[in-house]
Amino acid sequence: MKKQHVILVGAGLAGSLLAIYLAKRGFQVDIYERRPDMRQASISAGRSINLALSVRGIHALSRVNLDQRVLADALPMTGRMMHAVDGQLTYQPYGKNENEVINSISRRGLNCLLMDTAESENNVRIFFNQRCLGGDLEAGQLIFRDEARGETRTVSGDTIIATDGATSAVRMEMQKIGRFNLSQMYLEHGYKELTIPPGAGGSFQIDKNMLHIWPRGDYMLIALPNPDGSFTCTLFLGYASTPGFDGLKTPADVLQFFQEIFPDTIPLIPELSEDFFSNPTGNLITIKCLPWHIDGKVLLLGDAAHAIVPFYGQGMNCAFEDCAILDDCISEYGTDWARVYQAYQEKRKADADAIADLALENFIEMRDSVANPTFLLKRKAELLLEEKYPGKFLSKYSMVSFHRTAYAAAMKKGRIQDSVLMEMCEGLTDIDQLDLDLAFNNIQQRLSAEAESNDS
Amino acid sequence: MKKQHVILVGAGLAGSLLAIYLAKRGFQVDIYERRPDMRQASISAGRSINLALSVRGIHALSRVNLDQRVLADALPMTGRMMHAVDGQLTYQPYGKNENEVINSISRRGLNCLLMDTAESENNVRIFFNQRCLGGDLEAGQLIFRDEARGETRTVSGDTIIATDGATSAVRMEMQKIGRFNLSQMYLEHGYKELTIPPGAGGSFQIDKNMLHIWPRGDYMLIALPNPDGSFTCTLFLGYASTPGFDGLKTPADVLQFFQEIFPDTIPLIPELSEDFFSNPTGNLITIKCLPWHIDGKVLLLGDAAHAIVPFYGQGMNCAFEDCAILDDCISEYGTDWARVYQAYQEKRKADADAIADLALENFIEMRDSVANPTFLLKRKAELLLEEKYPGKFLSKYSMVSFHRTAYAAAMKKGRIQDSVLMEMCEGLTDIDQLDLDLAFNNIQQRLSAEAESNDS
Repeated sequence: MKKQHVILVGAGLAGSLLAIYLAKRGFQVDIYERRPDMRQASISAGRSINLALSVRGIHALSRVNLDQRVLADALPMTGRMMHAVDGQLTYQPYGKNENEVINSISRRGLNCLLMDTAESENNVRIFFNQRCLGGDLEAGQLIFRDEARGETRTVSGDTIIATDGATSAVRMEMQKIGRFNLSQMYLEHGYKELTIPPGAGGSFQIDKNMLHIWPRGDYMLIALPNPDGSFTCTLFLGYASTPGFDGLKTPADVLQFFQEIFPDTIPLIPELSEDFFSNPTGNLITIKCLPWHIDGKVLLLGDAAHAIVPFYGQGMNCAFEDCAILDDCISEYGTDWARVYQAYQEKRKADADAIADLALENFIEMRDSVANPTFLLKRKAELLLEEKYPGKFLSKYSMVSFHRTAYAAAMKKGRIQDSVLMEMCEGLTDIDQLDLDLAFNNIQQRLSAEAESNDS
Repeated sequence: MKKQHVILVGAGLAGSLLAIYLAKRGFQVDIYERRPDMRQASISAGRSINLALSVRGIHALSRVNLDQRVLADALPMTGRMMHAVDGQLTYQPYGKNENEVINSISRRGLNCLLMDTAESENNVRIFFNQRCLGGDLEAGQLIFRDEARGETRTVSGDTIIATDGATSAVRMEMQKIGRFNLSQMYLEHGYKELTIPPGAGGSFQIDKNMLHIWPRGDYMLIALPNPDGSFTCTLFLGYASTPGFDGLKTPADVLQFFQEIFPDTIPLIPELSEDFFSNPTGNLITIKCLPWHIDGKVLLLGDAAHAIVPFYGQGMNCAFEDCAILDDCISEYGTDWARVYQAYQEKRKADADAIADLALENFIEMRDSVANPTFLLKRKAELLLEEKYPGKFLSKYSMVSFHRTAYAAAMKKGRIQDSVLMEMCEGLTDIDQLDLDLAFNNIQQRLSAEAESNDS
């Protein structure tokens, strides 16, 4: 069999990991990346929401023996620490035990490791500064301009996989071909990166094993730890709302806003207004599209196919799981790319839609519901149910973050569970007042009823 | 005041009419049209669903004194004639009297008249063969390639209005700018144009004052009359369904399909398989996007902003109404284009969304519900209510087609009326069994209840 030649567009997290998977199958892999090599150039800073690596990402990394190396550079976060305006702290664990954590990790370090690993395979090449200008997708051809040299070339291989992210140039080409369904929806909110630097001697100024949230209803600030003692903070705020990015025009505006709303962060973020005005304001987009492929010629994977907002910490995990599932489809159908891509799309589309919706919902949970007493009781009930009914009850968060339940199934089951538990927790003042067995039985009944109504 | 220079992209129906509006205000208008001049070249045939001109379009034409000239070439259609498989005919009037008709008109003739009228103004120029390659929208610049001469030029004016249709090149440029929300959704159905030629001596082979429908559940055939005695037929059919376009591969397949499903059309469409295989299969798309403008620099109008499926006969009518409403906004805000466009968008967005949804729903009504006895009774009830309660009751169809009720209001009110009447008609065998006064009162009650729940 002729050695297959696969063109990848984009050497981000998904593209770099996928290259490793494909290289291990013996394919020749060429990656065309728009940006310079981040291992040499100074990376554009100020737009890197920290990543929370969890079970799906870890599993996908483990299949190419990278999980332990990656986790070595990560900081486990055991739960959420909520900071009220008056400084009061409320802690909410993510899991029922210390193994159920999510892992704070820097995008840059992980991406560099994945590129290094990919290039250490003999059959992977990465070309940088290659801007995709479009192409003839039905012919399997793409045109790239070398932004450093100004040259343009046409590239083709046995197949093309676009891992070029939310603003995918390849997806924009697919849009020009008939019957490509697409929805791209921006939040009314933008985000701004800020930094809590390390304390004396590289110490952490706030608890390093938690994801910190300052929930404020319509908006919020979060902070994730880095190994050097710093925290990467992200302010999620509406543009046109009050307060909003549009109204924060001067250092005095920003300082006053933080003093009023996030007073405990004032001593933690010394470069507040410098960060605020030098870092760009990022946008938050949800993309759904179909088809993801054109026969066997081109496939969209990761954010290029299904960009999601970051509030479930699943963007990278989902993209990594994409790689593993595509790899499974190659196991099944070989290099019959049309069949591989169709099987992958059929397997994956509903799950990608589901995590997109879950991520949007989780924004409300993070910025608002975490300050709702009924919601806090519900989260406690979930952990108690997981302990009391091991293997029989899993919360939605747990199915998504600590198990590899298909996203669509997790969403459907999770919503039913949430609805029963929120109803039962309403009005309670302490979790001891909840009859766990009754809650479990109510949930089972609702799940059975739902399953029956689906069958009939 | 300096004479304003407006660039229009696209000399289709919306662009040509808008040019006339703008010319009458004294602006210099340059239209850049991708195709050759259809008044000279042979137009690409076989993809022109006939148009049904109704009140919104007539009103917009009347404001530039074109309504009577256009209606002179139109054929009024008083209602739908449904053709069952066994040849049985069922007639359903559109309106309560002979003035409530929709008007069958050819796209080509109307477009030519509008271009002629635009060019007869001293301050309008149309450039043909101009393909928009993109541009710098924030700078108000567009790049066009002259497809006949191979030259490229950059164009700018005081403002740009994109009337370049469902596949708008300008909209694709807006997509590259941050926070542009877009949804483009194709139906699973395509369409194919067929022709019923004139009978002996230019006679009409079927009734010329009706819109003919062969409703078949998931798909349908329709026919609209032309002044020369012919009918333009359109088959709306799924691609992958059974039956479906994908399965109709040979003349024998097509003939058998029509013999079984549309037997009464066999003698009417002599060139059936020639038409079928030489005409392209068209796609049906719904587009929603926001924002429609970038400050005062660029505006999307007509299909470019809100392409809809053709089943309510409102695509052109809506685009023409767009022109009239934009003209109202110019009356109010002059050439402060940013304010004009923002006011226009705020006035029009909800209505464009509503007619998009109504058009999708009407596909089901045309292909399926028109064969449902309860639905037929409901339509009768509507006309009786309009007669009995003049000025107090208007059906949804009437609000959309014979009145200029805002689309969003028509949709909301119409849905409530439909739900009350469908419920009351369920199980009846004759319209005499319906208590019209009770129906009217029930509707009023539901409308009041709805209005109250919105207020509170």
